[in-house]
Amino acid sequence: MPNRQIVLRQRPTGRVDASTTDIEEVEIPEPAEGEALVRVGTVSIDPTIRTWMNDAPGYLPPIEVGAVIRSGGAGVVTQSRTDRFAVGDVVYGMTGWREWAVTDRSFTVVPRGLGLSLPSVMNVLGLTGVTAYFGLIDVGRVTEGDVVVVSGAAGATGSVAGQLARAKGAGKVVGVAGGPEKCRYVVERLGFDECLDYREPHLTARLHQACPKGIDLYFDNVGGEILDAALACLALRGRVVVCGAISQYNAAERHGLRNTSMLVIRRARMEGFLVMDYAARYPEAQAELAGLVLSGAIVHDEHVVEGLENAPSALNMLFDGANTGKTLVVVDPSVTLD
Amino acid sequence: MPNRQIVLRQRPTGRVDASTTDIEEVEIPEPAEGEALVRVGTVSIDPTIRTWMNDAPGYLPPIEVGAVIRSGGAGVVTQSRTDRFAVGDVVYGMTGWREWAVTDRSFTVVPRGLGLSLPSVMNVLGLTGVTAYFGLIDVGRVTEGDVVVVSGAAGATGSVAGQLARAKGAGKVVGVAGGPEKCRYVVERLGFDECLDYREPHLTARLHQACPKGIDLYFDNVGGEILDAALACLALRGRVVVCGAISQYNAAERHGLRNTSMLVIRRARMEGFLVMDYAARYPEAQAELAGLVLSGAIVHDEHVVEGLENAPSALNMLFDGANTGKTLVVVDPSVTLD
Repeated sequence: MPNRQIVLRQRPTGRVDASTTDIEEVEIPEPAEGEALVRVGTVSIDPTIRTWMNDAPGYLPPIEVGAVIRSGGAGVVTQSRTDRFAVGDVVYGMTGWREWAVTDRSFTVVPRGLGLSLPSVMNVLGLTGVTAYFGLIDVGRVTEGDVVVVSGAAGATGSVAGQLARAKGAGKVVGVAGGPEKCRYVVERLGFDECLDYREPHLTARLHQACPKGIDLYFDNVGGEILDAALACLALRGRVVVCGAISQYNAAERHGLRNTSMLVIRRARMEGFLVMDYAARYPEAQAELAGLVLSGAIVHDEHVVEGLENAPSALNMLFDGANTGKTLVVVDPSVTLD
Repeated sequence: MPNRQIVLRQRPTGRVDASTTDIEEVEIPEPAEGEALVRVGTVSIDPTIRTWMNDAPGYLPPIEVGAVIRSGGAGVVTQSRTDRFAVGDVVYGMTGWREWAVTDRSFTVVPRGLGLSLPSVMNVLGLTGVTAYFGLIDVGRVTEGDVVVVSGAAGATGSVAGQLARAKGAGKVVGVAGGPEKCRYVVERLGFDECLDYREPHLTARLHQACPKGIDLYFDNVGGEILDAALACLALRGRVVVCGAISQYNAAERHGLRNTSMLVIRRARMEGFLVMDYAARYPEAQAELAGLVLSGAIVHDEHVVEGLENAPSALNMLFDGANTGKTLVVVDPSVTLD
């Protein structure tokens, strides 16, 4: 039985295309002492994967040319040489884009019995949901009555961030998303108070209008012009949570941010974070998020693509704004939490 | 006896010039009940005054056309209708650029008996010194062993910030200043470990070299390209204290900041502040700063310009980098703390 995997053929400039990756067949790996073998069921498609393809300083080393594309994923343990995992356990970790993986320190057991499906767990309880949690609560210190703005509001992290803000008592939750359909989704399905279409002109003026007293907490997934607009509308002691900058990852030239003087004028804070730093506290976040999903306070959607070979095009979808909710690629549909 | 004052004739674009201000003679004001009359001795020349001349949102309303140029200053009380000030008290407050002022809520008595001259008090214990104090300690949370970089290192705020960092146990203190003479001053007179000349090329590479483990705390007085270079060199959990952006105040177009992605990569914080917010705690800062001046841990220099009519050109000096230390304009040399 072969082990298909997707490797980096050459570093992209701009969008990922047919020359970026190769699909290859290799031997199924043998787990060493302390490792387990995992049949990968679903991999997670996240904007940050695009940043790992660049030969540039980042929070993780770049993916080497010829190496498997790094990504999170879930699968079932088929062979174990560690006490940590039993055969049949569903585990989550940095599987990479491949059919079979061996576990490393990043892997944990996905709890069953929550009443949630594997895609739900990979969405709200996965890295994107947990990112929303720590960004909003620990970095952004969301407070009752806060006017919260979330960009990428229809995306995996943004949709959880906004709904969590509401659950934490935010006074107003405003989304920013691309196109009328997504904006409708953000308001009607996710329950944001308002959603602004960044493709329409005069975003800054519309943000001012939506938040006449200013933005207390801006949760930024996109960077660029939208971040500049939000900076212009900050309230006194506003907080900007820098989670991601999807508008910049494919860009040939980075947007130059012009409104950072607002940090002085509004005595505001702009802070970046990485969810990996909170690994020891994932269970706390996951427990609270699971409760909010089960109570209906957080709704969620997955954009599921079939077939490992479609992972590169699924990644491009994130940059085209073609997805709503969490994007997942199913590698083996037989791996479930049932 | 006339009361000369400098008013805003028209808003400058770029540098202040002869068409920006008028000097006019008006009546000496009559203090109302609760006010005192002040003979102004010295006014403080600060980059922020330039920002108040723009018709743009700021932390204070713009100076209106026709109004006296707003500034800090010290003087002696010559008539009092308030218990707060006695005739003969030397007071500090927002005098504006004029010979006679009446007190408002911004005025406090300058303590005598510290063994410090009025220029020293207006420098280290004035708003610029106190700004350095709260920026470094409260916003930057300077910690023993920190690698600290200070831009505008030869200026009023920067020189105090760097020396205070040293006094608080910073591991290394690196200045950034314009020209070899200033850099020598920063190292030899102020005792910074190193000072980089931003007029020379490759500032980012030289910052990396000076701070091979990264910058823990960057105290920014200048903004623009230098801020971008410092962002590129941040250490993990680095802090950027946004105090000022003198490089931008005269600029026709604001610099677009390109390296804010480092906030995510380094889990770093960039925070603005205004010293006015710490008014209730000025005495705490001033007591500590006075002690450091008297012990010799903080040395300081004033760039003194004679004559109220020279205040506009003294302001330009800050943007030309022609000053070293605190710039003051003496309006009446007979006002002293002796």
